[in-house]
Amino acid sequence: MKTALVTGGAGFLGSHLCERLLDDGYEVVALDNLYTGSLANIKSFENNPAFTFVKGDVTELDLGALDAAASRADGTVRHFDEVYNLACPASPVHYQERPLFTTMTSIKGVLLCIALARRDGAKLLHTSTSEVYGDALVHPQSERYWGNVNTIGVRSCYDEGKRVAETLVSDNIREFDVDARMVRIFNTYGPRMHPQDGRVVSNFIMQALRGEDITVYGDGSQTRSFQYCTDLIDAFRAYMELPKEQVRAFTRRHALGAPVVNTGNPGEYTIRQLAELALEMLPESKSRIVYRPLPGDDPKQRRPDITLAKELLGWEPKVPLAEGFAKTIEYFRRLAK
Amino acid sequence: MKTALVTGGAGFLGSHLCERLLDDGYEVVALDNLYTGSLANIKSFENNPAFTFVKGDVTELDLGALDAAASRADGTVRHFDEVYNLACPASPVHYQERPLFTTMTSIKGVLLCIALARRDGAKLLHTSTSEVYGDALVHPQSERYWGNVNTIGVRSCYDEGKRVAETLVSDNIREFDVDARMVRIFNTYGPRMHPQDGRVVSNFIMQALRGEDITVYGDGSQTRSFQYCTDLIDAFRAYMELPKEQVRAFTRRHALGAPVVNTGNPGEYTIRQLAELALEMLPESKSRIVYRPLPGDDPKQRRPDITLAKELLGWEPKVPLAEGFAKTIEYFRRLAK
Repeated sequence: MKTALVTGGAGFLGSHLCERLLDDGYEVVALDNLYTGSLANIKSFENNPAFTFVKGDVTELDLGALDAAASRADGTVRHFDEVYNLACPASPVHYQERPLFTTMTSIKGVLLCIALARRDGAKLLHTSTSEVYGDALVHPQSERYWGNVNTIGVRSCYDEGKRVAETLVSDNIREFDVDARMVRIFNTYGPRMHPQDGRVVSNFIMQALRGEDITVYGDGSQTRSFQYCTDLIDAFRAYMELPKEQVRAFTRRHALGAPVVNTGNPGEYTIRQLAELALEMLPESKSRIVYRPLPGDDPKQRRPDITLAKELLGWEPKVPLAEGFAKTIEYFRRLAK
Repeated sequence: MKTALVTGGAGFLGSHLCERLLDDGYEVVALDNLYTGSLANIKSFENNPAFTFVKGDVTELDLGALDAAASRADGTVRHFDEVYNLACPASPVHYQERPLFTTMTSIKGVLLCIALARRDGAKLLHTSTSEVYGDALVHPQSERYWGNVNTIGVRSCYDEGKRVAETLVSDNIREFDVDARMVRIFNTYGPRMHPQDGRVVSNFIMQALRGEDITVYGDGSQTRSFQYCTDLIDAFRAYMELPKEQVRAFTRRHALGAPVVNTGNPGEYTIRQLAELALEMLPESKSRIVYRPLPGDDPKQRRPDITLAKELLGWEPKVPLAEGFAKTIEYFRRLAK
């Protein structure tokens, strides 16, 4: 039985990943400080004997403390075959509330996972973000684009923390041959999204459900891509199934520097289109669309080039926006009750 | 008597700063791990009773350990009025030798200095670098340029470590009102440069002195600016003399996000011009110029826009290249003996 650690395992994406790993027959440890994650997210599988939840913070744990917290009922220390690093507040409303904590979560979180991967010889999947591209000047963004990120602004705590985490992973691959893989995750949505994460999908659906004004920042012409959560989990699993040698060969062949692929849905929608979709799918809603000033450093356009993920993982997103949106609306509807 | 801590105080720039602070009547503690710094750099003032050298590494010290190491002869703990954070290998040949150590020096070094500044209510000068601009796509670079930096390449350990250090300083200003100031240092040269730092000034002079081929990477058309070390120290001191309120007002007026100014000499020279200058100033040299392939991620052009430093500090570089170059040649000549 393979063993996996998922940091941020009670979060939106982490909980979907834990669920998938349990389905795939893994013994799973979820580590989460419940800052943005929630026990409700893991409720459907918390009693699965192959699942262990550890309440802990990657900024406070060293390997010894993690071993103690994640030890089995019989006291034996777990060794992991796979480590998935998903711990980090990811929405501006959360990460700007505690900017220093956010940066240190990125840094210390990845260092903890790297230490574990080095000790156990585990595969490591580090989740990075399309935010490393910042307010991108080229579209769509390929992995070769170096980004346009402000180091000293109010979004920097997340963007720069995630950027330097990629650097730490890359140098650990070069210096210590760690079997790490990285994904840059573009906008992802679905059930278990945090209803107050302030991001556009949850905002629009919650506002439409409550009959409140749907707030569009700026003129709504800025675009986003929307990836359904299970598509992303498919990519994670496909990536981790690959042998190390194949990942390395791919990285060399594409002169990438380190193994990193974009995961996102290249379908591009304006924020205004999304607001209209929310109203269309909730015809009973009394909401109307209103426009507000754009906050600082907000990217104007964001769309993944997923050529590399297609080639390396034989993967591409499958769930159409309307279908994923319907499931998400259903989730928020249940939550509101 | 004011007290100052200089991390990296036995380095090229750190030792010049310590010397200046001693001249200005400070009690000075230099902290250095001697990885690229050297006791020879502090020899001329090591016996000054106002000077204390502490051999220590910012990646290993916490505040308690620093207090113990830097306590006075009578056992009393020092409290600092000013903290200057200069600790970090800064040349590719040094930082690429230990990439993970380099990144962690940036991160842990700035966190140590911030902790000290917060505890003592000290002013903090954090030295960042023109490398945060990476392979800049705009010229000259102003503080508003966000940079073009690869997160996963062989230079990333330095560039991204320095970028996230700026973020940590900025958020500590916003969150804890730390009285921090940041400079982005462009190419600086002068006596006490590390002769094997692999950078162009030391390379060319050492090669010319030894009668070896002067190696130019690429076609030599890439440009650099060259700031003489004492000009930079002038900027440091002027910056630290400003009251906090003035720094804050300036930052707000220019909508900078955080107080950061470029310090460099805007005079722009091609690498080929510099090689020719070395031969001109060492007419006895038997060296000739040869061309080699350009290494990865090497910036093609780099020139500071120092408008903000001029306005805020009433400062600009004074030492002409020929004069600074002559002093540097003199230093390397003595070193070679």
